[in-house]
Amino acid sequence: MDHETRNRMNDEKKYVVIVDRLERRGVTELDIADITYHLQIKYIPDLEMDVCLDHVKRVLKKREVQNAILTGLELDILAEKGMLSEPLQTIIASDYGLYGIDEILALSIVNVYGSIGSTNFGYVDKVKPGIMGELDDKTNGTVVNTFLDDIVGAIAAAAASSIAHKYADADFDTELYKKQ
Amino acid sequence: MDHETRNRMNDEKKYVVIVDRLERRGVTELDIADITYHLQIKYIPDLEMDVCLDHVKRVLKKREVQNAILTGLELDILAEKGMLSEPLQTIIASDYGLYGIDEILALSIVNVYGSIGSTNFGYVDKVKPGIMGELDDKTNGTVVNTFLDDIVGAIAAAAASSIAHKYADADFDTELYKKQ
Amino acid sequence: MDHETRNRMNDEKKYVVIVDRLERRGVTELDIADITYHLQIKYIPDLEMDVCLDHVKRVLKKREVQNAILTGLELDILAEKGMLSEPLQTIIASDYGLYGIDEILALSIVNVYGSIGSTNFGYVDKVKPGIMGELDDKTNGTVVNTFLDDIVGAIAAAAASSIAHKYADADFDTELYKKQ
Amino acid sequence: MDHETRNRMNDEKKYVVIVDRLERRGVTELDIADITYHLQIKYIPDLEMDVCLDHVKRVLKKREVQNAILTGLELDILAEKGMLSEPLQTIIASDYGLYGIDEILALSIVNVYGSIGSTNFGYVDKVKPGIMGELDDKTNGTVVNTFLDDIVGAIAAAAASSIAHKYADADFDTELYKKQ
Repeated sequence: MDHETRNRMNDEKKYVVIVDRLERRGVTELDIADITYHLQIKYIPDLEMDVCLDHVKRVLKKREVQNAILTGLELDILAEKGMLSEPLQTIIASDYGLYGIDEILALSIVNVYGSIGSTNFGYVDKVKPGIMGELDDKTNGTVVNTFLDDIVGAIAAAAASSIAHKYADADFDTELYKKQ
Repeated sequence: MDHETRNRMNDEKKYVVIVDRLERRGVTELDIADITYHLQIKYIPDLEMDVCLDHVKRVLKKREVQNAILTGLELDILAEKGMLSEPLQTIIASDYGLYGIDEILALSIVNVYGSIGSTNFGYVDKVKPGIMGELDDKTNGTVVNTFLDDIVGAIAAAAASSIAHKYADADFDTELYKKQ
Repeated sequence: MDHETRNRMNDEKKYVVIVDRLERRGVTELDIADITYHLQIKYIPDLEMDVCLDHVKRVLKKREVQNAILTGLELDILAEKGMLSEPLQTIIASDYGLYGIDEILALSIVNVYGSIGSTNFGYVDKVKPGIMGELDDKTNGTVVNTFLDDIVGAIAAAAASSIAHKYADADFDTELYKKQ
Repeated sequence: MDHETRNRMNDEKKYVVIVDRLERRGVTELDIADITYHLQIKYIPDLEMDVCLDHVKRVLKKREVQNAILTGLELDILAEKGMLSEPLQTIIASDYGLYGIDEILALSIVNVYGSIGSTNFGYVDKVKPGIMGELDDKTNGTVVNTFLDDIVGAIAAAAASSIAHKYADADFDTELYKKQ
């Protein structure tokens, strides 16, 4: 039954495709786990990197997450190749500030572990730790990371929520589970 | 590992509380499973009631779902007792059409299984099959079901999404998984 | 000041582009207004078609709505031309049931007028009145309307919400504003 | 027509109630405008405090925003008085970290100006500038600000989005409108 539960929302085959796609765009699972670690270390002082990496992998196996990643990366790549029609081509290629579809896809990733991840997402999207800062470096005009930027932050935030759920139990009034 | 996965998002203890609360408001798990059956029978002709009931139970074990139910039912009951301050008391007691917080809580339930449940939710919220029709019968002015109405529809829709995920596999282009 | 308010969220220039794009995909503003009328006539018996059309136009002027439409139609057209990479190409071209990004974009349209539109959206997405039924007719394998289908329903539902807000006033306990 | 547009989504009468409620909980419009200023000054160097205050007022006139505020503050106050039933009483009074309904209400406020406000919200919810830091000071066990905390951040983030929309125009590729 547990096995079935896990499989229902997961797609193990597509997971391999997703990891490969992210790597081709310059992002490894470890890069994302690094952001998750950055987010959770203040709440869980003995947090280990391996735990973060494990939860990033869990997030990347979710079908809903995979669909958001596939769609966002496709739009980045098509914009990079100049293959979108106007005005969408310019909007995405220039990372236009009032285009919010990238945030919408990102929130659909974050929501896989409930609403508690939304603040983690917003935080890293502003602060841009680790790989996110590199992706955001827009000096090179030939690369488009409009969606990837938010997607990486959303995966890291979702993994952080997954860890928070893992540490939760019936003793919900312990210090650990106070609102982050 | 699977066992852990299941537990992380679930709260088995609170599940018992939730089922009891719903029953006190006149709604059984079977009432909700009945709506799920109504939603899915056109896509899965040999669907059995037991499967629907099983998936309703799964939905009710999710912590995120439980929090939405506890909050919504509390507001219904407080409005029924006239214990809310104005103007919220009148807004909730009269099921004011431009108050959308009940839909917002309902969507947080539906989203536990991804966005595919949102159309199922909207449909039952309009058509009001089974118990939803009874809850919506507002002739008795002493009962407030402003939140319960939407919550029941959302649980049924989430269970329908859970069933859809269960039947999905790598052969995603089979007729069964065509857009509902 | 009012003029400014209207302009801030609106983009009048892109509105012309949007109407043209929808028409090229076989959908006129009147087709959408027809669905809005279908949704609201039971609540406002003397509703006129002109009012519905006016509110559809208002929805189509919103920048957030325009961005969702541009993105969704682009993905439909690229899938139609076979220009997406796999597995996204097959997922969108076959309107795969567990792909929920189309619903996510649709909900971002509906949310422009608050959460009360989400049930209207779900309802039309199931019942598929008017043009939606034609779009959903998938016998012709060369046309992809995976996103357009939901987008049309979302615009109609948003226009219905806009009308509901128009009829609301301080007398919120009148029969008209009872929960739809 | 513009006048009508403004009124449709707004409720001027309830605005007065909302400002009074927030003040009773220790939050003025100026406190919120201060957070908005903090958020936007890096993008608009000549931003004035008056502009921030004006946009906070606009946000507080929106019916959808008002409903979220009324509901959240009511739950805070009832928890403070110990009037909620268990386990909701303990969950809200202790600001339990896995209770996400406060974030859900906050996101419904942020969404009034589209999805671009979600990152601003997440950022201030982590960093807790100005009044948010004071609200979050949980040493005094008799005060419950579980919802107020997120609500204040959401209003400030929505006002920041409103300002961003104000500064936008057809020249969307200017530096100002690059993704924040």
